[in-house]
Amino acid sequence: MAIQNSTNGQPKAKLDASKLVVKLAEQLKPLPVPETMTFGQTQTDHMLIVNYDPEHGWGTPEIKPYAPLVLDPMSSCFQYCPNVFEGMKAYLGPDGEPRLFRPQKNMERLARSAERVALPPFDGDALLVLIKRLVEIEKRWIPNKPGYSLYLRPTMIGTRPALGVAASDAACLYVVVTPTGPYFKSKARGISLLAVSESVRAWPGGTGGHKLGLNYAPGFAPQREAAKKGYEQILWLFGDRITEVGAMNVFAIVKRADGALDAFTPPLDGTILPGVTRSSVLSLLDAHTKGKSLLPGVPASQKIYTHEIPITMSEIKVWSDEGKLLEIFGVGTAVAVAPVGRIGYQGWDEEVVLPQHDGGLGPVGKGLFDHLMDIQSGKVDFEGWSVPVV
Amino acid sequence: MAIQNSTNGQPKAKLDASKLVVKLAEQLKPLPVPETMTFGQTQTDHMLIVNYDPEHGWGTPEIKPYAPLVLDPMSSCFQYCPNVFEGMKAYLGPDGEPRLFRPQKNMERLARSAERVALPPFDGDALLVLIKRLVEIEKRWIPNKPGYSLYLRPTMIGTRPALGVAASDAACLYVVVTPTGPYFKSKARGISLLAVSESVRAWPGGTGGHKLGLNYAPGFAPQREAAKKGYEQILWLFGDRITEVGAMNVFAIVKRADGALDAFTPPLDGTILPGVTRSSVLSLLDAHTKGKSLLPGVPASQKIYTHEIPITMSEIKVWSDEGKLLEIFGVGTAVAVAPVGRIGYQGWDEEVVLPQHDGGLGPVGKGLFDHLMDIQSGKVDFEGWSVPVV
Repeated sequence: MAIQNSTNGQPKAKLDASKLVVKLAEQLKPLPVPETMTFGQTQTDHMLIVNYDPEHGWGTPEIKPYAPLVLDPMSSCFQYCPNVFEGMKAYLGPDGEPRLFRPQKNMERLARSAERVALPPFDGDALLVLIKRLVEIEKRWIPNKPGYSLYLRPTMIGTRPALGVAASDAACLYVVVTPTGPYFKSKARGISLLAVSESVRAWPGGTGGHKLGLNYAPGFAPQREAAKKGYEQILWLFGDRITEVGAMNVFAIVKRADGALDAFTPPLDGTILPGVTRSSVLSLLDAHTKGKSLLPGVPASQKIYTHEIPITMSEIKVWSDEGKLLEIFGVGTAVAVAPVGRIGYQGWDEEVVLPQHDGGLGPVGKGLFDHLMDIQSGKVDFEGWSVPVV
Repeated sequence: MAIQNSTNGQPKAKLDASKLVVKLAEQLKPLPVPETMTFGQTQTDHMLIVNYDPEHGWGTPEIKPYAPLVLDPMSSCFQYCPNVFEGMKAYLGPDGEPRLFRPQKNMERLARSAERVALPPFDGDALLVLIKRLVEIEKRWIPNKPGYSLYLRPTMIGTRPALGVAASDAACLYVVVTPTGPYFKSKARGISLLAVSESVRAWPGGTGGHKLGLNYAPGFAPQREAAKKGYEQILWLFGDRITEVGAMNVFAIVKRADGALDAFTPPLDGTILPGVTRSSVLSLLDAHTKGKSLLPGVPASQKIYTHEIPITMSEIKVWSDEGKLLEIFGVGTAVAVAPVGRIGYQGWDEEVVLPQHDGGLGPVGKGLFDHLMDIQSGKVDFEGWSVPVV
């Protein structure tokens, strides 16, 4: 869909990467030393921004010095929250050039998210061209160290400046960038989870299957409560079923009687974010089992069968009691693979404690993490997932 | 709660109305003629604004010329939507002075909303003092015509400028103002509703019982679909139960065998917004039945019994088929009381059509509307609900 009809009878402009205007910062910021970087708090020198108005459609995309947004206080983004985003990472390849990981998947999901909250449509290919240009311009911000990358945050917000409760016919699409290191770098142990069912993150007919900003604020107060009880993240339940952990998808690795492993993750039933890392982990596990691409450190003979099916807290307890529960980990763009150490739940007499491993991750999680890092940084190719920016 | 501990050991400042700074606009905008006013699109000359930062607490409240907000693109309000709001109206009293309607209830609900998304707490009494001052300054914007008023939109947004998924420890609290006329002024007929169960507005353990911006954007796309099918608003269902209509609470008036009326509205089970108008309507119906304060146009002998209980679509169908369903109306600050004309539902063979009345509202809805207008404009006192600003 390239052209829509405008209210004035003129066709509305589509998002057009060839119209990009680049205004470079006159003075570049000093780079942080890797040890001082906190995820999402350092802004790089530049940002990408383009506005949509109901009369003309998409305007001129700009890469310009990082700057505040200037918005009418009645804007829809403040009042009714039609705000969507993506998380992407750019790694330096062996050639010193930045690479993106399956970026088309982010473009597609961002488009679906925008549609879910009735924001204007955009051309994902054009946006990807613009994002690649931004990464190229900001590549000096990627620390040339293993596990370090540039985190990109494409964001689209409704900017209709009126209080009537209606879809926003104006929007601002922008991409900001922050350098980032390994998410859980100092964690020798897995993270602790409190399983919560009183607060519900998502439900059938709701928005949990889309990457909307509004899915996150309702978790802030429960997260504070969990922290007071000594847990780092929440394991979100829907009834007795597990859905997500913190802001990640979740996997459980369970030993079978025949020595093979089952890898369980909840199905995409509309309450689960369709994570790019989740999808990638499923593919990598299948590739290992089929012998197409082995997970580092996992024997070729070790079969791991994937299952997208509901997982209940009762099952986790039984698996744990029977000694079959080998690993639970969260997966997501920010963290890649994050090990779970223990889970508390009011429905249980005592916590489920996962087997401990040096560095936190068990063999399957570690194999996935290492494999993902190798693929994302372009050291290993897997189905063309890692895409050079230039 | 006045003082909290700050991270630097100094107490954080509470919201303090005595610190208000007023900067009046050098040039005042021309007033719109009432016929050209569209709800929520005209901004008055001034706004109220005050910021909270994690180090110092609440800053200096300002009433200043209406101006855009300037915010970091990483701000929490864009990314994770910890944004809450209120709707309030100021009417001109018989003395020509503006009055607010039960404003303390809005302050209490705003505080609960802020807590739900982990925004900083504020002193509701102090905010009310500031809002009264703003209304006083903007009172020239209230058209001196029946049904016209000033709509106030207190808003609080998270302004933490970082991408980590965490509660916003910075906030901006502001109030913008728009002149407004009767919401459904030209409606001779009731509004048409499409009952929707595939999209679900709220869920137990979710946020439907709080006035959060994030409750609204998920309704935009379903609302568009309903409009395509020829319906003006959505009747939100939870399973077979009705919950809200558009952005209003809902009442059904049903005839009993003994000639009395039942007024049903869904209970506050966490999926329903605890509306100030909803609460007021329940009180006014009870007051009529007890003979304490009669609804204009409704005979004193007409008993109307209120029930906060679940209402199913099946019940509505049966009531309608049996000729007992006299009125359905939505209630809310923007609209006061809005009549429903017909309801479409995929579970029904044909629409439920409500009895038609001149002007749209049936006798109970009309009595409530007129009574509310009289109370809100200070012509009639009811339990001190209408509060003069000066």
